[in-house]
Amino acid sequence: MEFVNYERPATGRDIESVIERFTKGELKNGDAVSVQGYVHRIKEMSGFAFVILRSPRVLLQCVWDEGTSKANIKDFTPEDCVIIGGTLRTDERSKLGFEIAVETMEKIGGPVAALPVDIGNDKNIEKLQLDTLLNNRIITLRNPKVRAVMKICDGVMYAFRNFLRGEGFTEFVPPKIVQTGAEGGADMFEVDYFGKKAYLNQSPQTYKQVMVGVFNRVFTVGPVFRAEKFSTNRHINEFTGLDLEMGFIESFEDLMEIESRMFKYMFALLNDEYAAELEMVLGRGARLPELTRFPKIRFAEAKELYASAHGRKVTDPTDISPDEEKWLGQHFLSEYDSPIVFVTHYPAKKRPFYTMEDPDDARYTLSFDMLLHGLEVTTGGQRIHDYDMQAAKMTKMGLDIAEFEDYLTMHKFGLPPHGGFGLGLERIVQKLMNLDNIKKATAFPRDRDRIRP
Amino acid sequence: MEFVNYERPATGRDIESVIERFTKGELKNGDAVSVQGYVHRIKEMSGFAFVILRSPRVLLQCVWDEGTSKANIKDFTPEDCVIIGGTLRTDERSKLGFEIAVETMEKIGGPVAALPVDIGNDKNIEKLQLDTLLNNRIITLRNPKVRAVMKICDGVMYAFRNFLRGEGFTEFVPPKIVQTGAEGGADMFEVDYFGKKAYLNQSPQTYKQVMVGVFNRVFTVGPVFRAEKFSTNRHINEFTGLDLEMGFIESFEDLMEIESRMFKYMFALLNDEYAAELEMVLGRGARLPELTRFPKIRFAEAKELYASAHGRKVTDPTDISPDEEKWLGQHFLSEYDSPIVFVTHYPAKKRPFYTMEDPDDARYTLSFDMLLHGLEVTTGGQRIHDYDMQAAKMTKMGLDIAEFEDYLTMHKFGLPPHGGFGLGLERIVQKLMNLDNIKKATAFPRDRDRIRP
Repeated sequence: MEFVNYERPATGRDIESVIERFTKGELKNGDAVSVQGYVHRIKEMSGFAFVILRSPRVLLQCVWDEGTSKANIKDFTPEDCVIIGGTLRTDERSKLGFEIAVETMEKIGGPVAALPVDIGNDKNIEKLQLDTLLNNRIITLRNPKVRAVMKICDGVMYAFRNFLRGEGFTEFVPPKIVQTGAEGGADMFEVDYFGKKAYLNQSPQTYKQVMVGVFNRVFTVGPVFRAEKFSTNRHINEFTGLDLEMGFIESFEDLMEIESRMFKYMFALLNDEYAAELEMVLGRGARLPELTRFPKIRFAEAKELYASAHGRKVTDPTDISPDEEKWLGQHFLSEYDSPIVFVTHYPAKKRPFYTMEDPDDARYTLSFDMLLHGLEVTTGGQRIHDYDMQAAKMTKMGLDIAEFEDYLTMHKFGLPPHGGFGLGLERIVQKLMNLDNIKKATAFPRDRDRIRP
Repeated sequence: MEFVNYERPATGRDIESVIERFTKGELKNGDAVSVQGYVHRIKEMSGFAFVILRSPRVLLQCVWDEGTSKANIKDFTPEDCVIIGGTLRTDERSKLGFEIAVETMEKIGGPVAALPVDIGNDKNIEKLQLDTLLNNRIITLRNPKVRAVMKICDGVMYAFRNFLRGEGFTEFVPPKIVQTGAEGGADMFEVDYFGKKAYLNQSPQTYKQVMVGVFNRVFTVGPVFRAEKFSTNRHINEFTGLDLEMGFIESFEDLMEIESRMFKYMFALLNDEYAAELEMVLGRGARLPELTRFPKIRFAEAKELYASAHGRKVTDPTDISPDEEKWLGQHFLSEYDSPIVFVTHYPAKKRPFYTMEDPDDARYTLSFDMLLHGLEVTTGGQRIHDYDMQAAKMTKMGLDIAEFEDYLTMHKFGLPPHGGFGLGLERIVQKLMNLDNIKKATAFPRDRDRIRP
């Protein structure tokens, strides 16, 4: 019988492992090395050429020499997949501290057509129209600055899950195909489910509340679908929801506390493990701030603060406009050095039926939004856990209780005081990476006119 | 300005933290404690009662005493959410090593209707019809044996991601709403996308290959939708795919090697961190085996092995039937003590268009399935990375290249030799937990007739 040779050592040709061995002193000037990657750029000089090799996280300079290198540089082109054999040469001018003098260069894959955009040039990529950038996503994602944003997405998901695991949360999987929506059914995509009507869920709300009864503290990361027709720089129709829910809370403040700790953890983790990508997008030496305090302000006070700063009366006392959010973001950044502000106690009229009203003033709710650099990235709050209170509120709002049979089942069987919040991955990354459009914060964005590639 | 008090200490009332403090010696016999949880069972005796309190992972015995406890036991019922104040009493008969003598018991939530099933009794739950179990999922998930399966799902996802991170993989998010399918379009659910036809993706195949060009080693965990009409004990219409893809492979053996290491890691992690749940489902002291070797067998040899063991000729030389898989699973378990076997070199006829043919025998492919206890839980293999080879194969198979424009774009722009595999979370958990139906391995299963709750 044959067995899988699962302990076979890696080739060590990935550039990251060469860097690691160089940093540890296991590889020195003059050592023979073998590296693999994509040809990112070729710059031909007189008698030699720079071949910039791209690995998943870095660029490595290799030097082809007409006299000593065996391969013919004319046979190679950007996006070729190559294995280079050569000699490590220390070089203090290089960021990595070394370059590779090419001896052999073997092509094991490569393009068969001209590239529609030059991804070897960051400035060129930045100048592209949004449509061109997205229509050519399969190739533009390979640009180091573009993909750095995707790596930050990986980091945010990693930080979210890792932090919550440490706080005793369990991950669960809610279904995406549902019979009715959590929020009442508006803005849902319809699915032909074996000839019957079904929908794509626009929130895991129902399921995360159900799971409070099972694991008390739960989270899920997954696609959320919204059939919203508007097209803005902060909306996409399929996004990644980072959702959590927790029971036995003492107050809705518990939720803001855990979210504050999470963002503190997330920023620190990104600074630690994703520094290369932060620098790539935000500039040399760029880091996220160390978060030490998280201002919070009541909705009504936030409205007044904006109005008085602008010498106006409060407009639309039930909602905060994107302009107001933006101004609040700037205000709290300049006054309190905080990119984050919690706006609490939203008006009951603007919150879903499951939101707990403020016992001190029923016009408001025990809910909050978190703004990151002036953009709402989280909505959360305490939920109604008592069956009679929830049923009464639905009736008062003119909802038909019979339509919420599944939703109310969990209340019938007993729930503790609980609450939660949801984050939009792409919105967080848009703000952290300072992107002008959320579509740049996701690999394959979906909007009203875009479902390719 | 007010700030979130994010360093406020936890209440310490969760049972897990009481256990931890007891284990560390911080809590001793006679100490005052406060615990919170669901009332799982109440057993009234003469003058006292056992109140079994349920936390996310354990059951804790509390003893209510008519003479000394302040609360009236008649006011409480299973599924009440309570905070109990009392005294810790060491008790060597108890699994936790202690129980709580109840002084106060406060109800902060609870049921308002009779429970449709008694979840305080595991035997009762096991006797339920599958439909009853699933129709009442909101309450049956709270049963400790049922939810232990969901906790194992959490563990498998955790192990998958954590292992791959250590191997240099990046997580990415593929879209679920697509214009055309990865596998050619059969068995897809149709979505009404702003009045136009779109589909729910039945595999992240295209996107993970695209991402090889970006991060070389990538993975994704997310819902996969299959509009398959059959109803078996191993099919659901929405499942959780654990998918990976990796470039610069030397052979398709690389894929089996990484999968072997992953399962070794996963089994060890589950034994370490999920022992309580393994015991709950599989019996006292139960652990998963330590995996040390991973047998592999060619498809054609596997077919012959089955045929000769049964004194028959080989039937259907292009596919392995579920019965054959089951027998192979038993054979490799009894002969090689391995719950896992890789079946390699599947016939080209039965593999998708993107599968690399075996250069030594084009009737077969560089592909594999992994069987876990006789059930296929993985399909994987090396993909075609060369544009001309892929286009020629499509033409040979009678496919219209124009329909695969997006798919072939990545080949046009250069790909290294690469491959990957996909795992079905629910199938793995079904086999690990020895469940007779896959629907028991997911919280909210979707089948042809079930999209609730």
